[in-house]
Amino acid sequence: LITVVPVEALPGIEERLARIPAPICELGTATRGLIWADGGPEELQMALERAPNVEWVQLGVAGIDRYAEAGLLDGGITWTSAKGAFAEPVAEHALALVLALLRELPMRARATRWGAPRGRSLHGARVLLIGGGGIAIELLRLLTPWRVETVVLRRSTAPIPGANRTMPIEALDEQLPLADVVVLTTPLTPQTRHLLDARRLGMMRPDAVLVNVARGAIVDMHALIGALDAGTIAGAGLDVTDPEPLPEGHPFWAHPRALVTPHTADTPEMTRPLLAVRIEENVRRFLAGEPLEGIVDPLLGY
Amino acid sequence: LITVVPVEALPGIEERLARIPAPICELGTATRGLIWADGGPEELQMALERAPNVEWVQLGVAGIDRYAEAGLLDGGITWTSAKGAFAEPVAEHALALVLALLRELPMRARATRWGAPRGRSLHGARVLLIGGGGIAIELLRLLTPWRVETVVLRRSTAPIPGANRTMPIEALDEQLPLADVVVLTTPLTPQTRHLLDARRLGMMRPDAVLVNVARGAIVDMHALIGALDAGTIAGAGLDVTDPEPLPEGHPFWAHPRALVTPHTADTPEMTRPLLAVRIEENVRRFLAGEPLEGIVDPLLGY
Repeated sequence: LITVVPVEALPGIEERLARIPAPICELGTATRGLIWADGGPEELQMALERAPNVEWVQLGVAGIDRYAEAGLLDGGITWTSAKGAFAEPVAEHALALVLALLRELPMRARATRWGAPRGRSLHGARVLLIGGGGIAIELLRLLTPWRVETVVLRRSTAPIPGANRTMPIEALDEQLPLADVVVLTTPLTPQTRHLLDARRLGMMRPDAVLVNVARGAIVDMHALIGALDAGTIAGAGLDVTDPEPLPEGHPFWAHPRALVTPHTADTPEMTRPLLAVRIEENVRRFLAGEPLEGIVDPLLGY
Repeated sequence: LITVVPVEALPGIEERLARIPAPICELGTATRGLIWADGGPEELQMALERAPNVEWVQLGVAGIDRYAEAGLLDGGITWTSAKGAFAEPVAEHALALVLALLRELPMRARATRWGAPRGRSLHGARVLLIGGGGIAIELLRLLTPWRVETVVLRRSTAPIPGANRTMPIEALDEQLPLADVVVLTTPLTPQTRHLLDARRLGMMRPDAVLVNVARGAIVDMHALIGALDAGTIAGAGLDVTDPEPLPEGHPFWAHPRALVTPHTADTPEMTRPLLAVRIEENVRRFLAGEPLEGIVDPLLGY
């Protein structure tokens, strides 16, 4: 039996699951599959105590670092996240930030007078994507009309469709100095925390721009402010920050080389229908005994 | 013989033309082909008086409204502009502005605190392009990865490659209320001046955004401010304004729904190599007696 918690977070989900049809129950000993639509690790822990026979938990988010850090991802349960499901809006936002930085739109938006012609084109740029999941694949798809050289760094070296080169993350120090545009799409894990620290930010080109649509803590934010102030890099577009929300008075607000968007690459209006599709598909697969989409590897933490 | 004025405006052009090889001369009675790299209509008029045997003038700009308004486009001379040559950077800038407006980046750039998740995706949008020249064709190419419905309005009804529909400009009143995104790419002529006036801006959807990378005066700027203030449209991204430069203190600066870039869709760094390619090609064709690229129709004014 399937339980959706809280069912109010997913308008229309009951009608969707009724179409399969999926047997639905209240949270309890009958629950075999738990759709965890909204709620933090502590609430989830309590829910799992009330539903000891759960075999599968579907998380409603793509980045599950909070649940991994809370030590939840084990106990003989199959975990799935929404990873990949929100790739379309997130990749679009990443490209919007890349173009905004290259065209210096943050500076233009704050200007109160005509300025000199400035700005760079994405054509001819070398784009380094850190992370080889759904967002990277979708961003590469959006980049197909541009003349760009794309390099994807990922854990495995299986080639990513649409990338000119796919390399292991160990090539980061070699690739950073070559990139005009660096986009972070990788999950936050103990291995990726502060992946871009002061040393690595210092390896970037002074005319390069950095876009983060993954998790704020993949970048050492303190080092990033230093790099921006020193002109070590040309600009940063951050949809994710560390901490979140970014506090008022933080130097990133209104920094001439920075643009912060408040974790809004995928708004609830954008994710809700995409999550509903993913859930319906996974419930169908769960009931049919088929492999699920977005399975989490507890050892990797994503 | 070919004359380039001023030759300093096009670094490397002499070497390029020497490769053809093209016979070069100072401005005078020997000049048959005049490459007008930089300078306004009055200087050009004076130059033509000194070179009475000119058969062909290549203008260094894509939008030649200033020369047309000065009454220069006649007198048995073949006129060519750079139209189409700068389409790549201009279309890119147009898309950057579209995405910036949909993702509300002007508001984010000015924010000094975390905000609520807001923003819209370009996927699923209906995009109306006014003008069917090189910029429109290139913008359609950049839009190919998106799920968008594209309509091009142009003078002729010959289908534009990549557009879902090509319609005559007379369909404007019918199409404006349907568009989520309106992009102006059309030349400024007596017919397109204030094409978007108060009446037509009032026909747009309140959630629609307008991007102008063509000429400022295609929009009635006074009416546009009114439409933005009233919420008749959701946002405007203007790379061109009327007048230019947009004066300090103008309400468009820092208007919460507007983003102004100072006619910088194609910076000199971007256009110089593209113009050099166009000139080299047209000089080659002129000497070979072949049809030129970017021929201007004096009656149409572009």
